[in-house]
Amino acid sequence: MTPEAPVVIVHYMVNYQERQLDRTFAALVDGTRRAILARLEREDSATVSELAKPFAIKLPAVMKHLDVLYDAGLISRSKAGRVVTVRIQPEPMRAAMVWLRRYERFWSKSLDRLAAYAERREGAATKKRR
Amino acid sequence: MTPEAPVVIVHYMVNYQERQLDRTFAALVDGTRRAILARLEREDSATVSELAKPFAIKLPAVMKHLDVLYDAGLISRSKAGRVVTVRIQPEPMRAAMVWLRRYERFWSKSLDRLAAYAERREGAATKKRR
Repeated sequence: MTPEAPVVIVHYMVNYQERQLDRTFAALVDGTRRAILARLEREDSATVSELAKPFAIKLPAVMKHLDVLYDAGLISRSKAGRVVTVRIQPEPMRAAMVWLRRYERFWSKSLDRLAAYAERREGAATKKRR
Repeated sequence: MTPEAPVVIVHYMVNYQERQLDRTFAALVDGTRRAILARLEREDSATVSELAKPFAIKLPAVMKHLDVLYDAGLISRSKAGRVVTVRIQPEPMRAAMVWLRRYERFWSKSLDRLAAYAERREGAATKKRR
């Protein structure tokens, strides 16, 4: 291994993770795809025709959405005869959530501000009552 | 208010949240936009020219990315003379994380499976040693 090899590997891994985040977020942009994932969350697995039923769109359109989810690694497909069963593959969504989690301090910050405001109001109300 | 009004309001709110998720995830698809947000997370606020500096792309391209982030409600802009300062607006990313959080049980599940596998291996190893 040359001294540069670890740097190259890290660079490759960062790039790989970035490309995966691109694909995960792109897959999540569409409401129909999010609805499919939400259903697979409730039911663990579903066949393609079961998944297509509640939607006002045709089966080939649903299949296209499933292709996007599959290519992004968000679902797995298994075939038994003519029946394709679909399941959630959780890892990419976990990585997307880890990415979003770094902004958590902003949410707690706005909650802190809200709490401080509530306390000030409370303090003012107490003063008035005296 | 007619009896249907609350249903219409709920429907409107669900639609509004869905459109917001569309815009949030679409804004997060691009690596440059994610890098801008990551920098705003570290530095709280930055001017447009400061934000443009580390990127190999030209200022107008950075401005376009900032427009997408602004339209999706992920950043705020404030102007003082010719200087535009940009900050994170956390709410839409919080909502996106809440959406992703419903898949959390799958992550714990795969951790459980990993733990069960480790225990089986451990058990098998103990048996062998006897």
